[in-house]
Amino acid sequence: MIRIGIVGYGNLGRGVCLAAEKAKDIECVGVFTRRAPETVKPITGYKVYSVEDLAKFKSEIDVLVLCGGSATDLPATTANYIKDFNTVDSFDTHAKIPEYFAKLDKIAKENGTLGAISIGWDPGVFSMARLLFGAVLPDGKDYTFWGKGVSQGHSDAIRRIKGVRNAIQYTVPKESALEKVLSGSNPELSVRDKHARECFVVAEVGADKARIEKEIKEMPNYFADYDTTVHFISEEELKEKHSKLAHGGFVIRSGNTTEENSELLQLSLKLDSNPEFTGSVLIAFARAIFRLAQKGETGVKTAFDIPLKYLYTGDPDEAFKSLL
Amino acid sequence: MIRIGIVGYGNLGRGVCLAAEKAKDIECVGVFTRRAPETVKPITGYKVYSVEDLAKFKSEIDVLVLCGGSATDLPATTANYIKDFNTVDSFDTHAKIPEYFAKLDKIAKENGTLGAISIGWDPGVFSMARLLFGAVLPDGKDYTFWGKGVSQGHSDAIRRIKGVRNAIQYTVPKESALEKVLSGSNPELSVRDKHARECFVVAEVGADKARIEKEIKEMPNYFADYDTTVHFISEEELKEKHSKLAHGGFVIRSGNTTEENSELLQLSLKLDSNPEFTGSVLIAFARAIFRLAQKGETGVKTAFDIPLKYLYTGDPDEAFKSLL
Repeated sequence: MIRIGIVGYGNLGRGVCLAAEKAKDIECVGVFTRRAPETVKPITGYKVYSVEDLAKFKSEIDVLVLCGGSATDLPATTANYIKDFNTVDSFDTHAKIPEYFAKLDKIAKENGTLGAISIGWDPGVFSMARLLFGAVLPDGKDYTFWGKGVSQGHSDAIRRIKGVRNAIQYTVPKESALEKVLSGSNPELSVRDKHARECFVVAEVGADKARIEKEIKEMPNYFADYDTTVHFISEEELKEKHSKLAHGGFVIRSGNTTEENSELLQLSLKLDSNPEFTGSVLIAFARAIFRLAQKGETGVKTAFDIPLKYLYTGDPDEAFKSLL
Repeated sequence: MIRIGIVGYGNLGRGVCLAAEKAKDIECVGVFTRRAPETVKPITGYKVYSVEDLAKFKSEIDVLVLCGGSATDLPATTANYIKDFNTVDSFDTHAKIPEYFAKLDKIAKENGTLGAISIGWDPGVFSMARLLFGAVLPDGKDYTFWGKGVSQGHSDAIRRIKGVRNAIQYTVPKESALEKVLSGSNPELSVRDKHARECFVVAEVGADKARIEKEIKEMPNYFADYDTTVHFISEEELKEKHSKLAHGGFVIRSGNTTEENSELLQLSLKLDSNPEFTGSVLIAFARAIFRLAQKGETGVKTAFDIPLKYLYTGDPDEAFKSLL
């Protein structure tokens, strides 16, 4: 059995707990939290400890699965965890990955540990598809579509507007753009062409809804470049209809092998639960990190560095006999 | 530049030539044939030599791309090539892969060479999807659909029937089965449920068409377990309408993360040219084999053993900076 520890119990930590239950070769030593341990009750009944006590578990945990956020949590804490543990995380601030990688790789090598960073579906499974598709069809173009699903960052941005009590924002891929891409015509698509943004907003009593709608639609980077729809609803309706964590998306590459012939590759995801799926990917890579650490590897890896066989639930060197 | 040699110039060899042209880091030293070299004219204008002369090119070729068939050609010849060269092949007799692997792995290790076997789309890209999807969603089921596309083996089987002059057989995935799978219901599907077989047959003058149709439909393994349709057409119509090499297919896995939540992963291919796409996959793996051989690796690898970064058209260790 591979012994894991789970750091953090938000949506993702909960997803990792559920994924650990599904994996027959994974055993969870405990969930580690910054909150008072007695206030955290994992859905799987795992034991809960304070993160302060993690050091005591150094010899009992093979891989630590880090479930903190990418904005502040992981950049501030992973360096500390990787000194003592092999780690897997879902760091997803694309632009900062090289810096995060370099810093952790150095620490891990100095301490003889191994980490996998930026594991999930994007970055993660989608990145793997982009690399594979591009290597196979160099004379082509790839497109990534996200959704329909909630974007946490965009929802937060709406919540910061004066007079907004709560909000949920869906990223919605546009059918018209998807169709063009699937036709193999390699269209030039603007940001506005690819995705629409749909917002469900609960306003404070007496707030100026017209101003809120205008502030959302004109918000630079987040909404100004998109077709944005704003619906004002009640807190009850938001809770009832918009608390699901479904998501999905597509990576599509179409490339020419000759002037006449084009080949289309597509990976698609349709997820009832974004954090439960991301947790499942983290658990598969925790397995790979355990195996590679046993072989003496140290430093930091991404999904591009790890042979697929190490993710396999059975004997890695036998995978080709049944799955090839 | 990575210097390759191409052994065999049939449909696949032609596809590899075209793929080599698209890859900016690949240079083709020549096409090697068992036919009289002057009778072979590669579409890309590459030089043609007799396979008998291959030994002379030992120091000039980094990777040999083997384009022979899996039934008799590769099993009879790869062992000989891999003594002197790094190789990539598309051996696709699933049941015989372990035996083929073991034999070549031993020879390659003894001779300090490196080979990749069973590279293409199935086995190949589809196998990679099956492994990844299954590792991430262990509580699930996967389905592979092939087509619509020509099955060479089934076409050959029809051509062996008395009174048949020529024939083309299409494997067609059934929409009804695909829909059930995409709904996430994890249906039990029989062979007949998943695919239909559509045959276009040119009969000899005066042949008994009713008997031919009966023989096709009742042929064990090939047709008896399927819904099979037989159309008799002229040689001209066959040439005109059925000489395309389009193909495609789907790998779909749906798995549960909780009792209520299911997650669906799908890889799909839509190919104008099956051999040109397979050739493109072979070229991407030739690049990986070259790089791994330079690192001193020997023996035989499958798609499961090779980190994705080695397929990347740029610097493998920089791939994560732009594609993750």
